[in-house]
Amino acid sequence: MTDQTPQVRLERAKEASRATAALTSGDKERVLEEIALGLERDAERIIAANALDIARGNENGIGDSLIDRLRLDDKRVAALAAAVRQVAALPDPVGRVVGGHRMPNGVALEQIRVPFGVVGAIYEARPNVTVDIAALALRSGNAAVLRGGSAARESNTVLVEVMREALVRSGVTAEAIQTVDDFGRDGATALMHGRGYIDVLVPRGSAGLIETVVTESTVPVIETGAGNVHIVLDESAPDDWARDIVVNAKVQRPSVCNAVETVLVHRQAAPRLVPLVASALQSEGVAIHGDDMVAGLVSNVIPATEEDWATEYLSLDIAIKVVDDLDEALAHIRRYSTGHTESIITTDTRNAERFLAEVDSAVVMVNTSTRFTDGGEFGFGAEVGISTQKLHARGPMGLAELTSTKWLARGSGQTRG
Amino acid sequence: MTDQTPQVRLERAKEASRATAALTSGDKERVLEEIALGLERDAERIIAANALDIARGNENGIGDSLIDRLRLDDKRVAALAAAVRQVAALPDPVGRVVGGHRMPNGVALEQIRVPFGVVGAIYEARPNVTVDIAALALRSGNAAVLRGGSAARESNTVLVEVMREALVRSGVTAEAIQTVDDFGRDGATALMHGRGYIDVLVPRGSAGLIETVVTESTVPVIETGAGNVHIVLDESAPDDWARDIVVNAKVQRPSVCNAVETVLVHRQAAPRLVPLVASALQSEGVAIHGDDMVAGLVSNVIPATEEDWATEYLSLDIAIKVVDDLDEALAHIRRYSTGHTESIITTDTRNAERFLAEVDSAVVMVNTSTRFTDGGEFGFGAEVGISTQKLHARGPMGLAELTSTKWLARGSGQTRG
Repeated sequence: MTDQTPQVRLERAKEASRATAALTSGDKERVLEEIALGLERDAERIIAANALDIARGNENGIGDSLIDRLRLDDKRVAALAAAVRQVAALPDPVGRVVGGHRMPNGVALEQIRVPFGVVGAIYEARPNVTVDIAALALRSGNAAVLRGGSAARESNTVLVEVMREALVRSGVTAEAIQTVDDFGRDGATALMHGRGYIDVLVPRGSAGLIETVVTESTVPVIETGAGNVHIVLDESAPDDWARDIVVNAKVQRPSVCNAVETVLVHRQAAPRLVPLVASALQSEGVAIHGDDMVAGLVSNVIPATEEDWATEYLSLDIAIKVVDDLDEALAHIRRYSTGHTESIITTDTRNAERFLAEVDSAVVMVNTSTRFTDGGEFGFGAEVGISTQKLHARGPMGLAELTSTKWLARGSGQTRG
Repeated sequence: MTDQTPQVRLERAKEASRATAALTSGDKERVLEEIALGLERDAERIIAANALDIARGNENGIGDSLIDRLRLDDKRVAALAAAVRQVAALPDPVGRVVGGHRMPNGVALEQIRVPFGVVGAIYEARPNVTVDIAALALRSGNAAVLRGGSAARESNTVLVEVMREALVRSGVTAEAIQTVDDFGRDGATALMHGRGYIDVLVPRGSAGLIETVVTESTVPVIETGAGNVHIVLDESAPDDWARDIVVNAKVQRPSVCNAVETVLVHRQAAPRLVPLVASALQSEGVAIHGDDMVAGLVSNVIPATEEDWATEYLSLDIAIKVVDDLDEALAHIRRYSTGHTESIITTDTRNAERFLAEVDSAVVMVNTSTRFTDGGEFGFGAEVGISTQKLHARGPMGLAELTSTKWLARGSGQTRG
């Protein structure tokens, strides 16, 4: 395909999106089943390509955790196919009537869900995202143009080939799934500037990648991900809830965006809660970065700096700060939150309701773990991403968030008076 | 206020947006009534400032139609106040529960409408937009930062002053309405790059202004307006519907985005419909830009060039083209439409349904005038603008489109397993 330009790929995706938009729900289920079968059948070919990426990654010393994210083995390829089947089983949002009424003059108005057209994605070296995004885009009637991390290039090339072959076997044009990986930086640029071709662009990855995509793009972007997540332990926070929720929110899966990063403790409750919560965290291997008061209450505290309050650790580290009252906690959250998820632990109804009303985040919680901010947990059945912007979608996104709407008006000769 | 920077204004608006978000629906109605009263009371002051803009406009020779859009007199100031009262009477979208359920573990999830925060607007020299956008933003709990056309600067300065005075009289901070007009180009730049301060930016005006804002902005934009609107006269189009709908869509108000610009006529129906429709248009003073076949059927046809198909005339001009069939009409629309509104006149159900399914525009119509694409006509009660993008809002926008959502989660100690 290297004789093409990125622009040609965008144009072909746009053209193909007319075909994917016209597929029935049953058609799309068959396409996705064909993709799942293709992934299973071509597992060896996929794993062989992945081995090249792994070898290059090891040569370049990209580190164990990146190698682990990159690696595909039999079990993980099977998981890719299973994920595709899970997406196929989701209800099709396209065609759903979401509004409408009859105008006084008799014109029948109907607002229905329609595919966006072409969904673009820019992401890092996780081959599973290649398959996830393509499956989600197709299920919602969209074509997809993908730009994955260069470290996963061999894997992505083969995964896209396997999916395109499955499209053709299903009688759908292969052009509905495109990669622009082979154009390097130019591929990403073409996506970000693809006005008229890319209907929505979803960046997935580090805060730096997301910032670049949001800043450079002239196409509409859905900003996902970065979570500098806070839990407030109010004066009335019960011991068990405070301990169990903070430990769960930090330890259950520290590398994800809904893991807690900073705990703000009411001064009156600090002597009671800080030692309790900190020792539970430390026994799970968590390093505590704390202010002076925390350091006075617990041993082995790393002095917290300004940077700690702003950091999304994504690791077994946590920042703990003592605040004078709810006002100070809210001001801290306003300053440092990325607008993803915040939770308060309290039995004071007034403070709970004030927190729910005043915190300006996608998900605001009382007395529960921030780990619940998740498409699966929210019952959407799939993980399109978690939007931290306010336009179009906010919080965990389901398939419906990969669609737009259009208005249909059926009349019988009406004109405007 | 000239000792400030644009950035300071954005920061103050952001801070003020916490106050506007906390206003009850009743509070907001009182604020808007106070603004309406202020506009009425200060009509003389507003008209005096406007006279300075008019005088400057005449000196600069900006033309009669711009002068007319710019002009404020007693009647128009009264209309501004009436428009504010109309917005006040709209149902408040904020706080409406739009989703939710109880998770299997008992956590209660609720998705509610919340204000965006700060709405930015960049628009041309129409002082009524200053008041409209401010009222719509406040009704939906938002603060607003406005950047109007420099030709209306004196008018806008006084209008913003009058509204800020009304805010203070209502006990709300004046900072909820800001203008950055006095910073010229820097004001617009600050809005377009106000990441973290401007939650959504709405450009209103010419295609060129919208293109600049969409391309330069790093904040989320809702693209509004440009309408290269088509009507297809299918082979089966009845004489009266074809004639009445085309004339209405062109003549009733030619300067607006939902006015028709190009008519595509099925070749088999051209000898019957082109003379009929063209003579009705010509008798209303419309100039016909047509292809060779049209020129052969009607007198006084200006030969249409490639440019005509792409032009949003916004005047008493129309382009007429004969097409072989519905396929050619759909291909023409795909190429030249701005995705605003298209209508087909037909009694053939199959063609009607195909048109509704395949045309990728915000509003797709059968047998009715494109002039109905309008917030008022759609029953939204106010004109926030007509979105031609697919993200967040598509088609006529109501007050709800000036809000976002947030998820509230209420638990009792739940952690994730």
